[in-house]
Amino acid sequence: MTFEVTILGSNSALPAHGRHPTSQVINHHEKHFLVDCGEGTQMRLSDLKIKRSKIEHIFISHLHGDHYYGLIGLITSYHLLQRQTPLHIFAPAGLKEILDTNFRYSQTHLVFDLVFHEVDCSKSVTIYENDELSVSTIPMNHRIPCCGFLFQEKKHLRKIIPEKLEQYRIPVSAIAGIKQGADFISDETKISNAELTLPPPLSRSYAFCSDTLFNQKIIPIVQGCDLLYHEATFMDEAGDRATQTFHSTTLQAGAIAQKAGVKKLLIGHFSAKYTNLEQMVEEARTIFPKTELAIEGQKYFVASDILQPTE
Amino acid sequence: MTFEVTILGSNSALPAHGRHPTSQVINHHEKHFLVDCGEGTQMRLSDLKIKRSKIEHIFISHLHGDHYYGLIGLITSYHLLQRQTPLHIFAPAGLKEILDTNFRYSQTHLVFDLVFHEVDCSKSVTIYENDELSVSTIPMNHRIPCCGFLFQEKKHLRKIIPEKLEQYRIPVSAIAGIKQGADFISDETKISNAELTLPPPLSRSYAFCSDTLFNQKIIPIVQGCDLLYHEATFMDEAGDRATQTFHSTTLQAGAIAQKAGVKKLLIGHFSAKYTNLEQMVEEARTIFPKTELAIEGQKYFVASDILQPTE
Repeated sequence: MTFEVTILGSNSALPAHGRHPTSQVINHHEKHFLVDCGEGTQMRLSDLKIKRSKIEHIFISHLHGDHYYGLIGLITSYHLLQRQTPLHIFAPAGLKEILDTNFRYSQTHLVFDLVFHEVDCSKSVTIYENDELSVSTIPMNHRIPCCGFLFQEKKHLRKIIPEKLEQYRIPVSAIAGIKQGADFISDETKISNAELTLPPPLSRSYAFCSDTLFNQKIIPIVQGCDLLYHEATFMDEAGDRATQTFHSTTLQAGAIAQKAGVKKLLIGHFSAKYTNLEQMVEEARTIFPKTELAIEGQKYFVASDILQPTE
Repeated sequence: MTFEVTILGSNSALPAHGRHPTSQVINHHEKHFLVDCGEGTQMRLSDLKIKRSKIEHIFISHLHGDHYYGLIGLITSYHLLQRQTPLHIFAPAGLKEILDTNFRYSQTHLVFDLVFHEVDCSKSVTIYENDELSVSTIPMNHRIPCCGFLFQEKKHLRKIIPEKLEQYRIPVSAIAGIKQGADFISDETKISNAELTLPPPLSRSYAFCSDTLFNQKIIPIVQGCDLLYHEATFMDEAGDRATQTFHSTTLQAGAIAQKAGVKKLLIGHFSAKYTNLEQMVEEARTIFPKTELAIEGQKYFVASDILQPTE
């Protein structure tokens, strides 16, 4: 039951030190979601041998270039490769006009459906769901409309113990209800759900918190999540600069993680001024020990018991 | 007297095989001109240790994404780096609207002057000149308005032989005229310019011919140039595909070079279908032996006596 995050780019606006602007791939049960798409994302996908074609949903946090300048190139490549399936884009207002303006001058008429879902960044709402997962917005406090995204597994069903089915001769018609927690009641007897089933696996969640000023309003939304990505553009020494530019520091990211009681914290969106990232994670860990750096090319499991990246 | 071309990207629309979309830097006497700016160009400049800040003029051949998607990222980086000097952009109509649309949503107000020069791709005209160089358009035949660029050194002045100045007591006031070819005439005597001067170095020229159907109309414009870059997206076996997409083949690029009597030919804009480029240059050489591949990261001198790349 895969639930993992691959970092394609973890730098802030100015590409530097071989680091790239923001982009991540979320793989949930082999459904691939792209979150943000800075310049060069399509090349990063190739470098990391992640098939572009697997992506059907793209979430863009806001319209600062380091979060979306790579989108038009990726879409153009899908077009050239004769993509057949629709591509869904969730983004603040304006992105459609930007893409349309480009395509008007290049006289590009996409061969596949590009479906825009305009996102209201002012409140937390569910913007996508499938049978297993939902994605909700997390309002950020940035210079322009901006939101993070909370990927939450839906509540899993309880697991029926196979021997019990036979023992109590449970008919097929009752199984769906029992998986959802019902007792089994027949004319003669009542068997409690606890005897028939095992508890479901825990539902996991990943919160992506893009560019934001230190913003405690997000705490109830990301409360207890298994993995929190939170921007940490600056170290504490540049706190004024963080405030001026509506960004957060390592200590502030740590404080959000600590107050929200998340299982793990991943920091990223590093300023070009930092060549050495170790000092950043060390500073964040003074507040929240279970902090890791978002390192490009690495995968991070969304699971409460695994902290280390897999590569 | 540097005149060299550095290839940043030489692939066609779909990035593949580690190759990047079109971009080149022309260095003429340490003035740096950027020609086309595909996605990732700013990273390519960093990789090749070419200082972004040296570029003051950018020429965009046409508004297909593989020739300009990297421009907005580069401009944004200039903004973040607090560029002071104006940046001149020469491009077909539409690019300003595209950039403005992006900047409107990102609420970006550039800290430097971005000066647009709208280029009419239907005819060959001089669009830029300084004391030493001029740049003219070369109309291409593509699916949308598209032009190449001819970089031509201005006619150099003749070199005065120092001993002659003394021998004939030539006054300072006469020197400028003599350098331009005038004889020296005083009350007593007339000394022919040929006796006083040496011929100037040859004026060199580089022609960049971007995406185009085989188009013999460009021959008089690029006639005799020292280095011709001509797209060769396909090999001869894919001639139909070249025609359909308004591109050229290796043999067609060779034919243009041969008919125009250029000194050297550089081919690029390779289709993603070709992993092995050697077969492409070999095919072009059957028509025009002095052909080279545009290899990313390599520099090519604009000089009639040097064929090999310098790296």
